[in-house]
Amino acid sequence: MPAGEFDLIAAIAERLPPPGPRLRVPSGDDAAVVEPAEGASVVTVDTVVEGVHFTLPAFPPEAVGRKAMAAALSDLAAMGAAPGEAYVALAASAESSDELLLAIADGIAEVARREGISVAGGDLVSAPILTLSVTAVGYERPKVPLVTRSGAAAGEVVVVTGELGGAAAAIELLHDGGAPGPGLTDEAREHLLAHQLDPRPRVAAGAALASAGASAMIDVSDGLGADAGHLASSSGCRVEIDLARLPLAKGVAAVAGSAEAALELAAGGGEDFELLATLPADRVAAARAAVSDARSQLTEIGYAVDGRGVGLHAVDGSEVEPRGFDHRRGSRSGSGSGSG
Amino acid sequence: MPAGEFDLIAAIAERLPPPGPRLRVPSGDDAAVVEPAEGASVVTVDTVVEGVHFTLPAFPPEAVGRKAMAAALSDLAAMGAAPGEAYVALAASAESSDELLLAIADGIAEVARREGISVAGGDLVSAPILTLSVTAVGYERPKVPLVTRSGAAAGEVVVVTGELGGAAAAIELLHDGGAPGPGLTDEAREHLLAHQLDPRPRVAAGAALASAGASAMIDVSDGLGADAGHLASSSGCRVEIDLARLPLAKGVAAVAGSAEAALELAAGGGEDFELLATLPADRVAAARAAVSDARSQLTEIGYAVDGRGVGLHAVDGSEVEPRGFDHRRGSRSGSGSGSG
Repeated sequence: MPAGEFDLIAAIAERLPPPGPRLRVPSGDDAAVVEPAEGASVVTVDTVVEGVHFTLPAFPPEAVGRKAMAAALSDLAAMGAAPGEAYVALAASAESSDELLLAIADGIAEVARREGISVAGGDLVSAPILTLSVTAVGYERPKVPLVTRSGAAAGEVVVVTGELGGAAAAIELLHDGGAPGPGLTDEAREHLLAHQLDPRPRVAAGAALASAGASAMIDVSDGLGADAGHLASSSGCRVEIDLARLPLAKGVAAVAGSAEAALELAAGGGEDFELLATLPADRVAAARAAVSDARSQLTEIGYAVDGRGVGLHAVDGSEVEPRGFDHRRGSRSGSGSGSG
Repeated sequence: MPAGEFDLIAAIAERLPPPGPRLRVPSGDDAAVVEPAEGASVVTVDTVVEGVHFTLPAFPPEAVGRKAMAAALSDLAAMGAAPGEAYVALAASAESSDELLLAIADGIAEVARREGISVAGGDLVSAPILTLSVTAVGYERPKVPLVTRSGAAAGEVVVVTGELGGAAAAIELLHDGGAPGPGLTDEAREHLLAHQLDPRPRVAAGAALASAGASAMIDVSDGLGADAGHLASSSGCRVEIDLARLPLAKGVAAVAGSAEAALELAAGGGEDFELLATLPADRVAAARAAVSDARSQLTEIGYAVDGRGVGLHAVDGSEVEPRGFDHRRGSRSGSGSGSG
């Protein structure tokens, strides 16, 4: 097995897909050198920390690598950008086995191959707990506008891709030691766990929404209510969401124990990595078709109106307080203001 | 004081210099959007971890921010690139005071202003120990070639900027609780401590060396011997270094206790953030003048020859084993092979 820092870095590099054509000087120099792009570049950084965003051994090391990459790619997806390069800072205990670190690299490589992003550099340092920080660089696609959080206008329709609540339900399953859960088939359980262990960033759906005329877009990483709040506050409008219309991941109700608790997981649980967007009403049908072509689905869940903040409307007509995932405290909180 | 994650992020953003002209969408959206550059971009990521790269309270929080930024900027300097944007992932305990985090932001802002780099994005997460990961993006300067580690050729002169051993000596002073040390003036002590608490990346000197025709360049972050090894191995040559010629930081001998121990700190201690480069002999005079204009100094310390590896030649003619700083183990090690 590799012995020192530099041998381990070389072994990690061997696991990764070959560098893309844009890399003039790939990993291994002081810095990567990337050929200029025609359009703007889009850059985001996302960090996952042991005990906060994942736990060992509930998360196999490959899943740690996959989740870190997915979180960063989800931000590129939310801009409608094409994946370019990823730079991975990996902090691990000096006592971590090389097998553990190579398995994390395998998870990173798996997502890099699937999503078409080059791992162009990184840093390996010692730390008491496992931390991965992924900087992802994406690029403006030809003839597709980049979409920010700030373009929503009153009268537009609010849509969300895929399904919600799966990531939060998966955490409950993982905390229960992977117990099957009442009324949950093995298939539904695996489906839910994948929301944490192999989350899929909506890269193609983000491009589809941007092409179809989305006016604002954000990924649902802090929780639907909190992220709707970020979008509303950036756009200077209010977002009204009908909770009964939320697309629940299969099995969430069984894990949550009730339909009401399932909606709370879907509205307040973070890390679903779905995309929340606004569209003019006459673009919704085309957007739905384009997102379907991108192998996801699009659900209308509300609308943008004049005002500020978010209204989450329960089935009985009452209004629910938006909750969000506080990445600093590693827990769900009542804070749904500001941007993050 | 700020209460939640999003308020704290806003308070941090207020401390930072205004975003540069290249930022179409600055921090606060899912990702930053950066206008395309004419030349290639240069990207590096560097992580500093509490207890490994700095200790509290020996390092004031501003110094933690400064060191993290300097480490990343030093990699841009080693390519001859112009600073562009920085993205900062900050992991801190949920119990960390907002004052601590804002002081770290002040240190980041200080370096960003001084070096002309925009802080264009970041991530704030919870972790048991303080970790900063800085991704720095730089750009190819007009008419100045980017310099990699791999262009050195036999017959060229090996040069180093600034002075060596200061960062390692500063660690010894900080571990001694800042005791004055025998034969060390207050001024020399402050000068040494600055190598850890306010390290200066050689951005202008890197551009000067690239313009003057440096054939290969690397920053001295792993230690002179180890980094000379990286350069030699990437270039396919051998590097011979005359230890007696190393430019020692003032006070290193007093801290080390002997001239021999001082040279060991200078050759084996990491984090000096100076630049090691190779040049054709007829370019050395011009390079020295250009580096002097960039407010540093250039010292000839050896030459590149056919072969492989590094020879560190002591004053008595004996050869010393190259040692390096192992970032994974947080200690100096005997490993001087590979690239990092």
